[in-house]
Amino acid sequence: MSKTIKKIAVLTSGGDSPGMNAAIRAVVRTCAYHNIECVGIYRGYEGLMEGDFKQMNARSVRGIINKGGTILKSARSKEFRTKEGRLQAHKMLVEENVDALVAIGGDGTFTGAMIFSQEFDFPVMGIPGTIDNDIVGTSHTLGFDTALNTVVDAIDKIRDTASSHNRLFFIEVMGRDVGHIALNVGIAGGAEEILIPEEDLGLDRLVESLNKSRKSGKSSSIVVVAEGDKIGKNIFELKDYVDENMEGYDVRVSVLGHMQRGGPPSCFDRVLASRMGVKAVESLMEGKTSYMVGLINGKMELTPLEKAIKGKTKINLELLRVSDIMST
Amino acid sequence: MSKTIKKIAVLTSGGDSPGMNAAIRAVVRTCAYHNIECVGIYRGYEGLMEGDFKQMNARSVRGIINKGGTILKSARSKEFRTKEGRLQAHKMLVEENVDALVAIGGDGTFTGAMIFSQEFDFPVMGIPGTIDNDIVGTSHTLGFDTALNTVVDAIDKIRDTASSHNRLFFIEVMGRDVGHIALNVGIAGGAEEILIPEEDLGLDRLVESLNKSRKSGKSSSIVVVAEGDKIGKNIFELKDYVDENMEGYDVRVSVLGHMQRGGPPSCFDRVLASRMGVKAVESLMEGKTSYMVGLINGKMELTPLEKAIKGKTKINLELLRVSDIMST
Amino acid sequence: MSKTIKKIAVLTSGGDSPGMNAAIRAVVRTCAYHNIECVGIYRGYEGLMEGDFKQMNARSVRGIINKGGTILKSARSKEFRTKEGRLQAHKMLVEENVDALVAIGGDGTFTGAMIFSQEFDFPVMGIPGTIDNDIVGTSHTLGFDTALNTVVDAIDKIRDTASSHNRLFFIEVMGRDVGHIALNVGIAGGAEEILIPEEDLGLDRLVESLNKSRKSGKSSSIVVVAEGDKIGKNIFELKDYVDENMEGYDVRVSVLGHMQRGGPPSCFDRVLASRMGVKAVESLMEGKTSYMVGLINGKMELTPLEKAIKGKTKINLELLRVSDIMST
Amino acid sequence: MSKTIKKIAVLTSGGDSPGMNAAIRAVVRTCAYHNIECVGIYRGYEGLMEGDFKQMNARSVRGIINKGGTILKSARSKEFRTKEGRLQAHKMLVEENVDALVAIGGDGTFTGAMIFSQEFDFPVMGIPGTIDNDIVGTSHTLGFDTALNTVVDAIDKIRDTASSHNRLFFIEVMGRDVGHIALNVGIAGGAEEILIPEEDLGLDRLVESLNKSRKSGKSSSIVVVAEGDKIGKNIFELKDYVDENMEGYDVRVSVLGHMQRGGPPSCFDRVLASRMGVKAVESLMEGKTSYMVGLINGKMELTPLEKAIKGKTKINLELLRVSDIMST
Repeated sequence: MSKTIKKIAVLTSGGDSPGMNAAIRAVVRTCAYHNIECVGIYRGYEGLMEGDFKQMNARSVRGIINKGGTILKSARSKEFRTKEGRLQAHKMLVEENVDALVAIGGDGTFTGAMIFSQEFDFPVMGIPGTIDNDIVGTSHTLGFDTALNTVVDAIDKIRDTASSHNRLFFIEVMGRDVGHIALNVGIAGGAEEILIPEEDLGLDRLVESLNKSRKSGKSSSIVVVAEGDKIGKNIFELKDYVDENMEGYDVRVSVLGHMQRGGPPSCFDRVLASRMGVKAVESLMEGKTSYMVGLINGKMELTPLEKAIKGKTKINLELLRVSDIMST
Repeated sequence: MSKTIKKIAVLTSGGDSPGMNAAIRAVVRTCAYHNIECVGIYRGYEGLMEGDFKQMNARSVRGIINKGGTILKSARSKEFRTKEGRLQAHKMLVEENVDALVAIGGDGTFTGAMIFSQEFDFPVMGIPGTIDNDIVGTSHTLGFDTALNTVVDAIDKIRDTASSHNRLFFIEVMGRDVGHIALNVGIAGGAEEILIPEEDLGLDRLVESLNKSRKSGKSSSIVVVAEGDKIGKNIFELKDYVDENMEGYDVRVSVLGHMQRGGPPSCFDRVLASRMGVKAVESLMEGKTSYMVGLINGKMELTPLEKAIKGKTKINLELLRVSDIMST
Repeated sequence: MSKTIKKIAVLTSGGDSPGMNAAIRAVVRTCAYHNIECVGIYRGYEGLMEGDFKQMNARSVRGIINKGGTILKSARSKEFRTKEGRLQAHKMLVEENVDALVAIGGDGTFTGAMIFSQEFDFPVMGIPGTIDNDIVGTSHTLGFDTALNTVVDAIDKIRDTASSHNRLFFIEVMGRDVGHIALNVGIAGGAEEILIPEEDLGLDRLVESLNKSRKSGKSSSIVVVAEGDKIGKNIFELKDYVDENMEGYDVRVSVLGHMQRGGPPSCFDRVLASRMGVKAVESLMEGKTSYMVGLINGKMELTPLEKAIKGKTKINLELLRVSDIMST
Repeated sequence: MSKTIKKIAVLTSGGDSPGMNAAIRAVVRTCAYHNIECVGIYRGYEGLMEGDFKQMNARSVRGIINKGGTILKSARSKEFRTKEGRLQAHKMLVEENVDALVAIGGDGTFTGAMIFSQEFDFPVMGIPGTIDNDIVGTSHTLGFDTALNTVVDAIDKIRDTASSHNRLFFIEVMGRDVGHIALNVGIAGGAEEILIPEEDLGLDRLVESLNKSRKSGKSSSIVVVAEGDKIGKNIFELKDYVDENMEGYDVRVSVLGHMQRGGPPSCFDRVLASRMGVKAVESLMEGKTSYMVGLINGKMELTPLEKAIKGKTKINLELLRVSDIMST
């Protein structure tokens, strides 16, 4: 039988995302509800190895559900990838009498958590926090929905000026390996084309599409480009290509950048974070370990961390088709 | 075999919701994509009976994806509930050579559409547009997600002033028969209690809960109240009750009202509307009729209008429990 | 010659407004810049009499410039209106070695500050923080600009649904004694009529105006009503009056309420708060007392508290005329 | 005596800014109020020379007060800088029986308007529309206030992620020749330093300031950089410089770009636009010509176009000092 959990630690690691604070709050309050002690760990695995801990209770997380970022701060740690680093981390947790760990982050975070759990037979539970939505085992990662709204709001603003000047805008959004953000905001922002890492549209098709759009009477256009698109040119080269190869276009580039990571989380992300925090703590109480909590078909479900890490999310092909039809 | 669809009409009816314009756009553009003619009908069934039609093409719906409300306007019609009214409506559609109808709205809209379809063997397809999320056959109705964000933003603002003054606020949100909005925004807004139509919390429990919250050191509190809650007092009577029966509270009431229905749709609602519009038109092309398109487990699915109308959505009990734990 | 200021206390009192936190931050940081000690007083004059003080330095006010409400909390105090209360307050300040006081609030706050200053020859400086913009000696009070944007955003949302349904909305905004909010948001929200405390439009003119608007082809209308309007009917009675006396209107009421007080301050209010905080502290350092800092013709100026309290701001008649012309 | 004005034309030219639509609406409605005919000219001086006109009445400008961009579209015209171009433009206006022109835009727009007015003794009135606030004769240009709020909102989001990761961000905002945007958003966004075109801070001072800020315990920092800053390095070179010359910084760059130009105008900009439109039309009716309307000490005033063009706005030195003190 698994050991009774009396004290849980929680950390955030990797890139921050809106909803991480709501998830910390949920972990802390679920602990309080079940009379389990809770400690926050600052700066992810770095702070874990340094013993940078703080006792937390229901009041410690007051007023943070609507704040972007993470009050526990985040970091990437090289040292935790070494055996020595993890030994040090384990020592700190043992000294603090911590029985289990909740790690909020993306696949790098989960890889560290899984190895740590295996090496020391230490209970861990993962909560997927990243705006990229690139984790298998949940239809939505924490922060994805908020980032979509942030980007769409920016595209709406850019479209105001694009249509006033009959311009073509290439807008770069986050997504090095996956096009989930680009695909959704492209549809929602009324983009003519969407360039994603999962498929190479090809320059010819892009040019053709823009020409068709213009002939149909559109005077301005938006092309959404994911960071990791496969068209073989960066966004500034794309602009130059159109400038040189197409007539009559006034082309501009906008790289949205880090503002996509911040801001108050959407209602969806706050509710999701609250549900995930409850599920993570209660799963640890039930003796479960090395799982990630996630949203599958509207319900909280567990997925083995190993599967979450190795899997690769797929683009919803229906959305690609919808995008094509909408840019008619 | 079903008749080939050459011309489709689209209307919005009942209470408006953010995303209706995006759905109109999607219907019109999907028609254009498939070389089907499309007519917009103004003011729902009223305009249908009057023949208040407008030819629409891909350009007619330019620049509306981010607009709240409905460019086709909406209305409630008593006359369409009569046989005479529907006969008149059918005559108008036949004169205009319309082969099928897409009706965007809630259960009232669908009831009319279903009867009409049965009486005249006329193909209809429903798109669920209402902020209340009270339609069976879709996890999300159009506008629900946007309304949640609008309400949460308002609650965040009210909390600023509540916590500056150590006040208790009763905040009324929409939801006459269902508590979906109240339950989600209650969790996301960090409410102490949530009063919904689906269960009667009871005044005693409310008082107990507020007392507990105060003893735990909270100086301000939010209670979210759905319009149709079953506690037996309206929101102003609730305030009076607390004023008279509890000490030391400075109680205020805020009724959020119609601003919950407006505003630019969220990314989620725009994408959902686009998917629903495509599915509605293509289902009619396949000869389907008297269905509602909906989102089930992340996919576009059809549900018979009859089932959509008669069914009753259920409160997610997990959310009720999460709310309890979070207000620890 | 005035005594050298070595320690300054700051408090917020009366109704809270966005920008109060930015002003607290500015007072604290200006003190730090000049090597003056600073203490924050919780809950206004209540906390002052109780000695509810907290030492503050530049780091204490980190991350609050964009937060609505006031981290020092606010309250209204009856006891401070008595001689005994103020004696107690003075005792506390003397014990804490405080040399001067910055009071952020409205006319009630300033009245208390002025009397206190006179009674004990104690240096005080006022910063006008209220959304109502009803203080003489500054073109803008802290929070006014933010509240205008909050209200206009709500009106934009209501207009979405108003124009979808061809409805008439009466929208109540804050302003018991002055119509500054109503007048500005009425123009910015495209209202047909604006009812303010400063003038009685008269029911007949309202009816006439609505009739004219309808005849001109407008299908929906917004009437902005300040809380303290002089038309002789409250907003629900207004609705009933139109329901009974005018044909073909579908009338709704929306009372915006306390959300008008919260939210992140606008850029304008943050800059204004920063300027006011600097000016308040540096004016005390120069030996000035019993003044309010304010924005006059774009510059920071001092106005005697007595004048600020007794004066009455006037409605900009040009705006009334602009409103008339715009609703043509 | 000046000729009676029976028909007025209105155009937008140069870079678009939020509030231009509200100004167009105000011009059109003021004309309607005074029974003056009004025509809109598409695409600025380009459309003027081509005779791309559209009759406008009070209803033509319905629902645009809250829309960014310009429904009349904008363009920059080389041809209008030639005598031939202006002759053609004059011919078009005469053919259309237009008696006066309202030109909404920046200094390029005003230069064209002034020359045109002089050459043909044609009445013109300018309305300053640009987010840069770089026009003499008005404390605020149309769109400046909205752009400030847009930028501050983006900085708030970036700060969420900056403080979660202890990062230094260089954020580039618009302002090629003037630092008004940078200075205001720098204060409102809590920036450590602000680099503007009007003064060269110098790299040494920047480095010193960042070091001081870090020593004081700040873990993250924001530096706001105007496009036209004089530090001698572009924003990416600045990042490289810090990477190479300072230890322990994780530096990122964000270029906010064109989203700064769009979005719904703030309440301030809508009211300002309404006032300016009324003033412009009524000044033409009074026989005035070659003036710009502007806001001076809270009142609508006229400034000769020549002065508006030749003047150079000055940075408010008080704001620079406030910025210094706030970053203590």
